[in-house]
Amino acid sequence: MRTDKFLPDIAAALREAGVRDGMTLSFHHHLRDGDFVVNRVLDALAALGVKDTRIALSSIFPVHAPLIAHIKSGLVRALDTNYVSGPVAKAISRGILAQPVMFRSHGGRPRAIGEGSLHIDIACVAAPCVDGMGNISGARGPSACGSLGYILPDAEHAAKVIAITDFVSEETPSAISIPHNRVDYVVKVDSIGEPAGIVSGSISLTRDPVAHAIARNAQAVIRASGLLRDGFNYQTGAGGASLAASQYLRDDMRRMSLHGGFLLGGITRYMVDMLEEGLFDAIFDVQCFDLAGVRSIAENAAHYEISADSYANPKQKSCYVDFLDAALLGASEVDVHFNVNVHTDSSGILIGGSGGHNDAAAGAKMTIIVAPLVRTRLPVVVERCTTVTTPGRHVDVLVTERGIAVNPAQADLAARLREARLPLYSIEELRAMALNITGAPQKLVLSDKLVGLVEYRDGTIIDSIYATNDS
Amino acid sequence: MRTDKFLPDIAAALREAGVRDGMTLSFHHHLRDGDFVVNRVLDALAALGVKDTRIALSSIFPVHAPLIAHIKSGLVRALDTNYVSGPVAKAISRGILAQPVMFRSHGGRPRAIGEGSLHIDIACVAAPCVDGMGNISGARGPSACGSLGYILPDAEHAAKVIAITDFVSEETPSAISIPHNRVDYVVKVDSIGEPAGIVSGSISLTRDPVAHAIARNAQAVIRASGLLRDGFNYQTGAGGASLAASQYLRDDMRRMSLHGGFLLGGITRYMVDMLEEGLFDAIFDVQCFDLAGVRSIAENAAHYEISADSYANPKQKSCYVDFLDAALLGASEVDVHFNVNVHTDSSGILIGGSGGHNDAAAGAKMTIIVAPLVRTRLPVVVERCTTVTTPGRHVDVLVTERGIAVNPAQADLAARLREARLPLYSIEELRAMALNITGAPQKLVLSDKLVGLVEYRDGTIIDSIYATNDS
Repeated sequence: MRTDKFLPDIAAALREAGVRDGMTLSFHHHLRDGDFVVNRVLDALAALGVKDTRIALSSIFPVHAPLIAHIKSGLVRALDTNYVSGPVAKAISRGILAQPVMFRSHGGRPRAIGEGSLHIDIACVAAPCVDGMGNISGARGPSACGSLGYILPDAEHAAKVIAITDFVSEETPSAISIPHNRVDYVVKVDSIGEPAGIVSGSISLTRDPVAHAIARNAQAVIRASGLLRDGFNYQTGAGGASLAASQYLRDDMRRMSLHGGFLLGGITRYMVDMLEEGLFDAIFDVQCFDLAGVRSIAENAAHYEISADSYANPKQKSCYVDFLDAALLGASEVDVHFNVNVHTDSSGILIGGSGGHNDAAAGAKMTIIVAPLVRTRLPVVVERCTTVTTPGRHVDVLVTERGIAVNPAQADLAARLREARLPLYSIEELRAMALNITGAPQKLVLSDKLVGLVEYRDGTIIDSIYATNDS
Repeated sequence: MRTDKFLPDIAAALREAGVRDGMTLSFHHHLRDGDFVVNRVLDALAALGVKDTRIALSSIFPVHAPLIAHIKSGLVRALDTNYVSGPVAKAISRGILAQPVMFRSHGGRPRAIGEGSLHIDIACVAAPCVDGMGNISGARGPSACGSLGYILPDAEHAAKVIAITDFVSEETPSAISIPHNRVDYVVKVDSIGEPAGIVSGSISLTRDPVAHAIARNAQAVIRASGLLRDGFNYQTGAGGASLAASQYLRDDMRRMSLHGGFLLGGITRYMVDMLEEGLFDAIFDVQCFDLAGVRSIAENAAHYEISADSYANPKQKSCYVDFLDAALLGASEVDVHFNVNVHTDSSGILIGGSGGHNDAAAGAKMTIIVAPLVRTRLPVVVERCTTVTTPGRHVDVLVTERGIAVNPAQADLAARLREARLPLYSIEELRAMALNITGAPQKLVLSDKLVGLVEYRDGTIIDSIYATNDS
């Protein structure tokens, strides 16, 4: 009988795991802006006097602002992430790190972990529920967040795995996210997160008329594409236009009496509603965005927790994105070659990262980018993206509120949309429309300090991010 | 969209997987004596002219007799297995293979696969249900067998994975045994197995009075051991005395109003009954032995499919056997050092293998061996086991119909059993009792041809098996 997994505090678990200078520690972001675990582990590392760590955190939120002080102290030397927002994003853009951040996609991260190019010494799991053996569930407990998909590859490959939990269950949870045989140590703390920040209590539909105009156009593209038929598999984000588009999709599916295949990606109540209504067979969930998603994954056998490996790792035998009919994705910038930027804004400041963007785009039969033509007086359609997140060869359509541009490589799709009398333009025409509104934007001048590398899902570096000059 | 996973026949899948001479192909035994898949793949290999393969099949049953012809033809050069019975066992004992069979335990096999000492080129999954993406479920379809636990490590580590199925589902099964991202190719055949042989329609309790005497003694040991309390975790086999002992355990638990933790291992209806009655919280299932088990795993959220890694791999962070309070296991021979043989009979002929025997013994707080004192006029308690499957240091008690012997290393346990007035003897006394019945057995003389190596769960070779002289 093993009884030595349960340790009194995080520092004890780190010591048992053999923590030392220069190690890579990994974390996940399912607790999103309510996460307490990353900051508590960093505090414990600081108390232990550890230095020069690499922190591989799947996404970085405003709550992770204490990272900045730990970078300055020398505790954190390097960051790997798929998405960054808030104070840490600004600090990276100003050049706080000596070495560039490695930006990956949600599929590229597990690829790097599996092939060993991202070796993890210690994986730290924010675990909403742990049983006496160390089985972890994301769907139970006071800090339940649903799917733990992004940390599953870490739990499989890390040398040591520490589960940090605020709920030790007497019984084994009926769905196990990470089995005990992958877990070295368990630490019980008072709380792993702030429920209000973990998931939005409810994500609400936007009333923004521009977003609705984009959404209607996007759904018109899906309808005209010929892909909307029984078995339709779909992924969309939780942005305003994307969520609104889901509503128009639902209306179409009801009207056409269609029965879809699966919904994929980050899950909101709008997807849960479609599953429960019977419009789709299944949800494959790497991350719950709201409480409806958390409830559904706990209760509905057709709502599956999936790992980042099965979601989007291009080196697996297949991944769910490969089976998408359509993906509806956002953009900070789209250039005339259909390249898409979701890493930086037009002033070069970090505002995000790929997440699953270039994964879904690579897999889907049709990738639709939804974006307003103009945002805060700057054109969204540009000559050349400040940063390339997703190569134009995987982008089929750009949908704006003013018109739609089809990638010239997709002549058949263009013909279908033309036949459906959709407002088609060339991407250069959309670019001209945008410039007509904004005037020629100031030319962006960045510093020569490299602050980030964009690693494409397959492991090739496709772009570099430089510090802004306002530092 | 991937559509190239589905191939017209087994030969096509083997070709796509790059099959060639000298490769290792792996298989599992969840379809037991009803399995069609191993023989069909071997036929396909023969038709392709492949030679010199290593066949890693988790257990070998009478239905696999065609292996003998494929060994003679040179198609099969080597075997790795955890258990062998029927004609193939006899053929091995007669020395049919040029190189010794590698015998592992159910936990040692995934250890060897995970560490790379058993490298699998092509894993062949007998898949009762496959969906359009290649997700595999063991719990649905006309040949449903329930858990696919023993092949899950192969699916994780093999270079190529082929699913052979007789049921392609339109919908994703609500429980996925192997996710599509581990599956390279899918082949649909008319039938993967003979339902009557896959699982016994019902396993019935023995009426053999010797088995019942042993079972009553075994349960008396459990009762007296102090381990039978709330949270009790238990594993037993499907042999006559073991099943009977489950009934006496159930009676005790009812009478004492106990609430157990989990039941582990190969699952029969007697365990399902105890789960459904609420006597235990959970079943962790690597293999269903009967239809009640198959039904239960499909319907009951407290009946979990587990992989061989989490069941018993000693190199994982923990495994289920580590949490056992008691394991009740059989024996072909037990020697005066409490070593146990389940590989060969007293004439040296192969009749089985460890399966989970030495895994459960190593993990459980108390390991009870149940066996009759005498079997077919030969003593079961012997001076030295013909083959050592499980080292005596992990065996705590031998229970026979005539008396009980406690390993001298377990003085506390002996004291408890003495206090409960159980019929305790030294193992030498039991040995003398047996000899008194049988007379001194003929000394076994084996040939000097090595036919098998017994690899302990941790990878060390603990014994060798030699050909019998009747060949």
